[in-house]
Amino acid sequence: MARIVMKFGGTSVADLDRIRAVAARVKRAHDAGDEVAVVVSAMAGTTNQLVGWCQALSPLHDAREYDVVVATGEQVTTGLLAIALQELGVEARSWQGWQIPIRTDNAHGKARIAAIEGAELIRRMQAGQVAVISGFQGIAPTGRITTLGRGGSDTSAVALAAALGAERCDIYTDVDGIYTTDPRIVPKARKLAKISYEEMLELASVGAKVLQTRSVELAMNEHVRVRVLSSFGDGPDSPTAGTLVVDEDEIVEKETVSGIAYSRDEAKITLRRVPDRPGIAATVFGALADKAINVDMIVQNTAADGTTDMTFTVGKADLARAQAALGTLAPQIGFAELLTDPDVAKISVVGVGMRSHVGVANTMFRALADKAINIEVISTSEIKVSVLIAAEYTELAVRALHTAYGLDAG
Amino acid sequence: MARIVMKFGGTSVADLDRIRAVAARVKRAHDAGDEVAVVVSAMAGTTNQLVGWCQALSPLHDAREYDVVVATGEQVTTGLLAIALQELGVEARSWQGWQIPIRTDNAHGKARIAAIEGAELIRRMQAGQVAVISGFQGIAPTGRITTLGRGGSDTSAVALAAALGAERCDIYTDVDGIYTTDPRIVPKARKLAKISYEEMLELASVGAKVLQTRSVELAMNEHVRVRVLSSFGDGPDSPTAGTLVVDEDEIVEKETVSGIAYSRDEAKITLRRVPDRPGIAATVFGALADKAINVDMIVQNTAADGTTDMTFTVGKADLARAQAALGTLAPQIGFAELLTDPDVAKISVVGVGMRSHVGVANTMFRALADKAINIEVISTSEIKVSVLIAAEYTELAVRALHTAYGLDAG
Repeated sequence: MARIVMKFGGTSVADLDRIRAVAARVKRAHDAGDEVAVVVSAMAGTTNQLVGWCQALSPLHDAREYDVVVATGEQVTTGLLAIALQELGVEARSWQGWQIPIRTDNAHGKARIAAIEGAELIRRMQAGQVAVISGFQGIAPTGRITTLGRGGSDTSAVALAAALGAERCDIYTDVDGIYTTDPRIVPKARKLAKISYEEMLELASVGAKVLQTRSVELAMNEHVRVRVLSSFGDGPDSPTAGTLVVDEDEIVEKETVSGIAYSRDEAKITLRRVPDRPGIAATVFGALADKAINVDMIVQNTAADGTTDMTFTVGKADLARAQAALGTLAPQIGFAELLTDPDVAKISVVGVGMRSHVGVANTMFRALADKAINIEVISTSEIKVSVLIAAEYTELAVRALHTAYGLDAG
Repeated sequence: MARIVMKFGGTSVADLDRIRAVAARVKRAHDAGDEVAVVVSAMAGTTNQLVGWCQALSPLHDAREYDVVVATGEQVTTGLLAIALQELGVEARSWQGWQIPIRTDNAHGKARIAAIEGAELIRRMQAGQVAVISGFQGIAPTGRITTLGRGGSDTSAVALAAALGAERCDIYTDVDGIYTTDPRIVPKARKLAKISYEEMLELASVGAKVLQTRSVELAMNEHVRVRVLSSFGDGPDSPTAGTLVVDEDEIVEKETVSGIAYSRDEAKITLRRVPDRPGIAATVFGALADKAINVDMIVQNTAADGTTDMTFTVGKADLARAQAALGTLAPQIGFAELLTDPDVAKISVVGVGMRSHVGVANTMFRALADKAINIEVISTSEIKVSVLIAAEYTELAVRALHTAYGLDAG
């Protein structure tokens, strides 16, 4: 008997049969005595169609009207799921963002949740009614419908779990939990029973995209325990199913390294022989920021001749724009050469245990050296070590590191 | 320069091209200086799909959740049309029933409008903003979404025209006005420039289904001038396009008969040799009312032997149920025989001029007699004479009456 939020994404509610299956799953929790709020996405494909219509009518469409159109996807799912639950004898009703209300700011298309009034939902859940809530949407101070942006339903679910004081927020998705690395590359990858918010954030932002980053940040700030589990696999009703994303304090036996992530979405840029004088970095990265180009890893070494080589990575999709922006600046900066390489991969080892263990980075460097993999760039944070290598070594590197940190399954 | 409501049905907004065409039409009115509110239906086909989903999940689904699901159809259209208008440089915003609000009762799936708060809409329309409003929906006292039932968008448009004090409510549909009769049967049928509310009601309820009956009743009560015109034809911007539905007082030259309507949706039931004693009619029609079966024409003649023959019509779809209900009552009523005939047609001549002209019914009877058409049942109202005939004579009768009343075009 607990108060829980269950969130089902678009593929979990893609058609009427799947909606019935979700209803059956919710009924089991309800029958077990849980107070249940369900957060749903639009049926798979719906949102893309609605977005496509808006774009076809006007490439620069009004974000407020876009929100009116796309918010209908979740609304349909809430009504249908409420009907499916009632058909199973479960008392249920649908809630739209404006009805609860889920208050957001005015940033249409990418709004942030400001407050959720949960008292009425709690009263009804305590009386046995299942709340079926539209994810991804809210209401602005202007009274207009807002959406939270792609992946926003995860954020809705976590925010509701916080507002309702839920014991847990179960995110049903198409994977059965968080793995030590991508099982497609490393068959011996292990599902983690628990992972900390910070590790999850590092893994998510470097390629293991299971939970929307904002939802993890929110869970961390609000101390919401999030469980990631499969909509389709067996045994999701077991309390050990999936992966629990929790406060670091809840993880008793901290692994030095929890997982290995990789990303092939970045490209490397090197400016050769940049004059080593104050303000150069600000000029370079200011120019990129002006174009809304995100820079990730940055390395700079000073040479003896008063010049420096600057290397950094940008999203592969931004490479051409970054080159153009820097080309324009060439006279002002005065670098000798601009080199680019899109064929790189970023490999990261992540683990809260790093805080209390020495030699974690060195294990990484040695493991890569053993496979003759050259490290082009290194960057570190408190719980992560990332390296940039040639993309062709990605799988080899991930497997070597997975073994080196003792993550391989029995 | 006038304040007008323009209403576009599902076929008028069936796809993006048609939505663009509607936007262009609205822009012309807006550019001419009119203050414009637009009421839209769901894109053709959408509502049927949404209704089908609800029914597939539960044949006896919760009407409140049904409303949540189907109301999304109109919401999508409002957002898309607002975007299309903005793309043409017209300031526009979408409004859902709960935002205005359009207050209704709690009768989900067939709610009635109770009140509309129009002040904010008027303020914005005066400032040049086009209001794009979801038809067919409102908000219940409980704060839940309601829908008005099929055809409800016409009612929304008329109610908004009343609340906004609009000079006219233009209903764009797939016909270019109200005709003296069905042009498929009588090629010489003429489009009427004007018709009174009461005539429209009689024509609508007997088969000329252009405007939803409730919307005409509301227009009559609120004195809203309604113009019916085509979304697709030429010249709808002309003030003489379509047919104007108005107060009888506005029609200077009243035709004796404005139109000929027909319906093949009814079936005839005759109870032979019913004992002629008080309370029999109440027993018979009470039994049918209990089963929610509507009875239309009723005729009763007393015979010399203390029995009577009762004839009446019910909807063809209700015939089997009516027979069953009356069969159960046979011992109690004691009629000799129950005869049914589904192969009948009701032909009606309608006109406010009847009030001041004699001999209208007689012209009808003579015209039918001339074609050797037998009249089975006659019923009259202040502005209508209806007869029941064998269905096979429908076209012949309609053409004969159209000529007899001088309605044939030039």
